[in-house]
Amino acid sequence: MTAAKESVPIRAIDVIRKKRDGGELTQAEIAALVDGYTRGDVPDYQASAWLMAVLLKGMTRPEAAFLTDTMLRSGEVLDFSGMPKPKVDKHSTGGVGDKTSLVLAPVVAAGGLIVPMISGRGLGHTGGTLDKLEAIPGFNVNLPVARFRKVLETCGCSMIGQTAEIAPADRKLYALRDVTGTVESPFLICASIMSKKLAEGIDALVLDVKTGSGAFMKDEKDALYLAELMVETGERMGKKMAALITDMDQPLGRYVGNALEVVEVLEVLRGEGPADLCDLCHELAAWMFLLGGRVRTIEEGKQLSDRLIRSGEALTKFREMVELQDADPRAIDEPARLPQAKHKLDVSSPRAGYVQAIQCERAGTACVILGGGRERKEDFVDPAVGFVLHKKVGDTVANGEPLCTIHYNSEALAARAKTLLQESFSIGDRAPAKQRPLVHRVISKSGEKT
Amino acid sequence: MTAAKESVPIRAIDVIRKKRDGGELTQAEIAALVDGYTRGDVPDYQASAWLMAVLLKGMTRPEAAFLTDTMLRSGEVLDFSGMPKPKVDKHSTGGVGDKTSLVLAPVVAAGGLIVPMISGRGLGHTGGTLDKLEAIPGFNVNLPVARFRKVLETCGCSMIGQTAEIAPADRKLYALRDVTGTVESPFLICASIMSKKLAEGIDALVLDVKTGSGAFMKDEKDALYLAELMVETGERMGKKMAALITDMDQPLGRYVGNALEVVEVLEVLRGEGPADLCDLCHELAAWMFLLGGRVRTIEEGKQLSDRLIRSGEALTKFREMVELQDADPRAIDEPARLPQAKHKLDVSSPRAGYVQAIQCERAGTACVILGGGRERKEDFVDPAVGFVLHKKVGDTVANGEPLCTIHYNSEALAARAKTLLQESFSIGDRAPAKQRPLVHRVISKSGEKT
Repeated sequence: MTAAKESVPIRAIDVIRKKRDGGELTQAEIAALVDGYTRGDVPDYQASAWLMAVLLKGMTRPEAAFLTDTMLRSGEVLDFSGMPKPKVDKHSTGGVGDKTSLVLAPVVAAGGLIVPMISGRGLGHTGGTLDKLEAIPGFNVNLPVARFRKVLETCGCSMIGQTAEIAPADRKLYALRDVTGTVESPFLICASIMSKKLAEGIDALVLDVKTGSGAFMKDEKDALYLAELMVETGERMGKKMAALITDMDQPLGRYVGNALEVVEVLEVLRGEGPADLCDLCHELAAWMFLLGGRVRTIEEGKQLSDRLIRSGEALTKFREMVELQDADPRAIDEPARLPQAKHKLDVSSPRAGYVQAIQCERAGTACVILGGGRERKEDFVDPAVGFVLHKKVGDTVANGEPLCTIHYNSEALAARAKTLLQESFSIGDRAPAKQRPLVHRVISKSGEKT
Repeated sequence: MTAAKESVPIRAIDVIRKKRDGGELTQAEIAALVDGYTRGDVPDYQASAWLMAVLLKGMTRPEAAFLTDTMLRSGEVLDFSGMPKPKVDKHSTGGVGDKTSLVLAPVVAAGGLIVPMISGRGLGHTGGTLDKLEAIPGFNVNLPVARFRKVLETCGCSMIGQTAEIAPADRKLYALRDVTGTVESPFLICASIMSKKLAEGIDALVLDVKTGSGAFMKDEKDALYLAELMVETGERMGKKMAALITDMDQPLGRYVGNALEVVEVLEVLRGEGPADLCDLCHELAAWMFLLGGRVRTIEEGKQLSDRLIRSGEALTKFREMVELQDADPRAIDEPARLPQAKHKLDVSSPRAGYVQAIQCERAGTACVILGGGRERKEDFVDPAVGFVLHKKVGDTVANGEPLCTIHYNSEALAARAKTLLQESFSIGDRAPAKQRPLVHRVISKSGEKT
């Protein structure tokens, strides 16, 4: 597998030169660079020159799959083949108010599939699944693999953080990309996401690729390119894949902030959530069911998702997982037990009219400023803070009517967040142009196409 | 000058990203990267990512000049303004059998100009001026600046190696480029050459940019691009510049190897050298005289060069410099005092015909294999070995007639060199197409154009 086992060792300098000159690397050449770097035989400065060459010269689809495979195999690949049910997962490229994972895991597990979900923390203006889960008092995201397996066997879903054993090549390469201007390559993003997700031992993966003012990929063309690349890479590695390009031009749902988002998750699981969030959850769940072979059409999948929520089975599943992962299940039925901010503050509309737009990255940043996200990896996160939107794009608003309510613990931070939130709302005289559907596009060769 | 002195520090990551995205860097941004790297504040892995971005995205002419200026100012810039005569130098991009520097320094100094020449060692298949000088027993290329100045004041020319004080940024960056696949960028090559040459405190510089099978730039288009870039960069920095694109499709002259090339230099200085070498020396000397204001036309410059050789003044100047730099001047008049190889071996023609071509890189490599050059910087060089060509392109040869004679100290190495030299000669039935002139093209805005 690695260059070290080849009879003729491949030199890092030759791999760099070949990519620099636009050549297509072999699996052995990619392994020589990536495994060599992970082992410490290839120095930082050669890896970073190679990363920049990859960013500027691109990769072919086979190269992207080889890179993903090499990074995947740099660490432990979980094997849940002992569990006879299909293993499926969902991954989102990150957004504001995106709490779908917390809904999907119990819904899809309640539907009879296994959801072994390894998630990340928030970074920049976006939230992270682990931070949301940890807002539930006691929730343990750091389960060792043996306990992760046990939770999966018991209730069908488990949600944990990345372990040190999974894709160490990605951890090392990501840290280097971060300081060398080589984060943005779709090939490197694809390999980073897919190597970690495929280490979960899944059969199928649904990707939620966000586009719009609150997404990392603001341009839909870039989102589409990445989505197609990830779908093809996963398929080359024998996985069933689908990618949904979804809207992130305003926050998803009405709650932004870790504990607040858990409250909204519980609303969705009780069949009471806001339409955009519920619709997206049903859509993503339907694709997970379809790829997992549980249903034959997306429509059937959406109906199943709706039924599992209305019956209370999904909420029961969520409560079961929460308890198995060391948290207090009473928080599920009494959301007042979740962390509460000390103060609330309304942000009022400066005029009457229609909400034309909500600049979504700015809104996400307001939550980070309140302490609900992190600007650097080591930052502490306050689970209680955030904001609740009362108006979304297309709504009418009276002069002085609250647009949103800030939940805060620091007056100074609340003042900064208020300014940002005020700036993020555009109010105009006319109703905004008809909004794009929440799901812009679906890319999949597996099962039904829409 | 440097970023550290700016009120807002410029971050290396932002400089990398800007270049990656094809932006034009300011002088402050280039200084932040290069000075930061030289100081050790910017790590290797950021510098190498930036170098790869520069290689793949290129630079504008102002950026190339800023980079050269930053690297030049990273160390000591010699100041010979106390000497009232114009200071001129020549730089070659490297070839096989190119010993023109050893002729030009004494010729141009004999003509009344100052030639403060700081040279390099051979690397790869090409020879280096310092290795040739050191073939003269006792010749000291490691003069401190004070002695370099004294030799210049006494005899008008001095030839030394790079000192630690000159362009430390280049030394550090060059070592990094060597291992990160970022040597080949014309902008980085230009800044590397020009920062070192302009540190000599010269007023004018003639560049001999080689093209053909024995040059680093085999493609004339690349050679032309680099030549124009270096000329414009030097002019932006207030220097008089000219570049000659010259032929390196076969070795220059007839002698290849350090002591052997000194023998040929002495032949040229006695007016007895081979036509191609003598012509190129006159041409380059003429441009040095022209840029230094010593003559008004190239023709006048060539006549001056020829006259200084015929009168013996140039040879006298060479003997003077050799003595001032600690070597035995008797070697100048009695070449038998130069190092001699123990054995000689003829390489004979396998057939009668015309010499169609001499693959020049292969011929240069034969000399390296004999021990006359170095594959790695730390290799020891044998001054005595090399070869003497009896036939050059266009010459007729009888079956079995010697094409060249190898001078060697090791039977095993001679056998390998012989094979390479045999392979480098192409013998055909017809006379080869008319050869291109030795000087393909001249780029200069200073003085006469040809």
